[in-house]
Amino acid sequence: MTTDLIDQLGVKRLAEYARVFNSTRLGEDEIVRILPLIDSLMIFSWPSFLTRERTRVMTRLRFVQSILAGVNHVPFSYFGTRVVVCSNAGAYSDGVAEHALALVLAAAKRIVEQNIQIHAGTAALVRHGEAAARIRFLEGGTMGILGYGGIGTSIAKLAMGFGMKVFAFSRRAGKDSNVQVGQGTRGLNRILETSDVVVLALPLTKFTAGIIDEKALLRMKKNAILVNIARGELVDESSLFEHLKANSDFHYATDVWWYKKGRESLMTDFPFAALPNFTGTLHVSGPSVLATGRPVLLAVENTLRFLKGQTPKNIVDRSEYISK
Amino acid sequence: MTTDLIDQLGVKRLAEYARVFNSTRLGEDEIVRILPLIDSLMIFSWPSFLTRERTRVMTRLRFVQSILAGVNHVPFSYFGTRVVVCSNAGAYSDGVAEHALALVLAAAKRIVEQNIQIHAGTAALVRHGEAAARIRFLEGGTMGILGYGGIGTSIAKLAMGFGMKVFAFSRRAGKDSNVQVGQGTRGLNRILETSDVVVLALPLTKFTAGIIDEKALLRMKKNAILVNIARGELVDESSLFEHLKANSDFHYATDVWWYKKGRESLMTDFPFAALPNFTGTLHVSGPSVLATGRPVLLAVENTLRFLKGQTPKNIVDRSEYISK
Repeated sequence: MTTDLIDQLGVKRLAEYARVFNSTRLGEDEIVRILPLIDSLMIFSWPSFLTRERTRVMTRLRFVQSILAGVNHVPFSYFGTRVVVCSNAGAYSDGVAEHALALVLAAAKRIVEQNIQIHAGTAALVRHGEAAARIRFLEGGTMGILGYGGIGTSIAKLAMGFGMKVFAFSRRAGKDSNVQVGQGTRGLNRILETSDVVVLALPLTKFTAGIIDEKALLRMKKNAILVNIARGELVDESSLFEHLKANSDFHYATDVWWYKKGRESLMTDFPFAALPNFTGTLHVSGPSVLATGRPVLLAVENTLRFLKGQTPKNIVDRSEYISK
Repeated sequence: MTTDLIDQLGVKRLAEYARVFNSTRLGEDEIVRILPLIDSLMIFSWPSFLTRERTRVMTRLRFVQSILAGVNHVPFSYFGTRVVVCSNAGAYSDGVAEHALALVLAAAKRIVEQNIQIHAGTAALVRHGEAAARIRFLEGGTMGILGYGGIGTSIAKLAMGFGMKVFAFSRRAGKDSNVQVGQGTRGLNRILETSDVVVLALPLTKFTAGIIDEKALLRMKKNAILVNIARGELVDESSLFEHLKANSDFHYATDVWWYKKGRESLMTDFPFAALPNFTGTLHVSGPSVLATGRPVLLAVENTLRFLKGQTPKNIVDRSEYISK
């Protein structure tokens, strides 16, 4: 069973190995009737019609493929270990990494500030002196990447292409000899203190929420660039606003926003947009990659592996998501 | 003889091999008195006090080092072939290439458009659908670089790091096997027709002025990104404005502006800033590199080569600048 997100070509390829149902085109009655027949689910986020009770009747279910990169939306307790769950890890990495570099460069070259001035008619051409000296260069600088999974790895590759030295903060020790991986509080502090650019590419967990708080901001270089392509809540909103106001050479560039009333929102508690050292985009990085069709393509290919009896990629360890 | 642009360390290094005069700290009388003693000049652009008559009395002059990348400001007819003139080629390449990629990414990710909306309070978070599909990716795309000198080469290297295929338009055949170099009108047209991103890195000459005219724009992809880090006059202003108005998916991102009344100016003939598919910066790329001190450092090092009796780098062929 799939959703409307799968394109016709994808459905055709799947149909060579399975009968394909599109849940968005079925009535709730029909869905309930066919649930006991379903071997495999391809979902974006876990469908609301699949309650605990309805999942229990899916006795043939052996395989769940997520189109979203992560699987924290999957209710593992609804089914047992006979169901293999696969993430779509890596499907978004290169695209989100491009967006991260776009934000780094927009901050370094003060793209938004200059265009706001051009729009307002207050701009003047830079010749020599102070205005030119405020433009930053990536070459020779240091990037710290917090969270060194698929996206972090892709960002590191791009940053090294610009001649940056890269440090990463990760739970796991690194395999790439060009990137030094730090761990624990000491590793984190060292990266914050030495980096010209810090990129947040961490999952949001109870350990990472608010990891960039007042103390972390004070450890960072006065003219650092902080980029967030992960989750707004990694950064303490009020501390960040005070820090940006007090340090005009510090820049925050983000694609993600804080949750207000249960959902991500542009309604911030402080007027970030009025600050010249703030750059924002509208959480476009993931959705724009989805729009290329690549994540669906990879999800279809992985489901085909299951349907052909091969071992699928990105099998998730359910113990990382439920206690038992 | 040097100018104020040379820092104290530079002067100290030069002073080990020569008596160093700073022209900006001397009166005109003093300058005229010491001109016959000068062996070597280090200039930003050719100084206005050095008229043809005054240059003629500089009988010891053997070496001129430009701090600017190009030497089109040097009046070669004022002196003979005994004077070696050196450009500062390459000193700005990596920095200007970074700026070019910043503009490419700002256009691809619609950074300015989104921030103008955030400022105006008219923005909404992108989830799926059309707005996300308008974001472009460099990976797998094609970049055409018009002008394949130091800056063009640096841009190509960065673009390939993003997984782009690179074509270059150049007078000379290319040496880099990863970049296909096209020549002549046919080569140019092919690059315009096939590129997702076109970067202008050409010198402005009588052959290149207006190279991007109405016909060239019509050859380009409807959703191409055109980036200009060279000179405004490479692009026909009125044709560009009409093209941007008619093709909302086409984007022009520029660091350089057209000349009005003899100097580069933000006072365009058309309201470019009002278009969502226009991104501008304030001719910061060159001056910001100069502000790092690197071009002066390289100019000092090259002058030291001359003073030590070694062969300096970047010796210019004067026949490319004067007819005889």
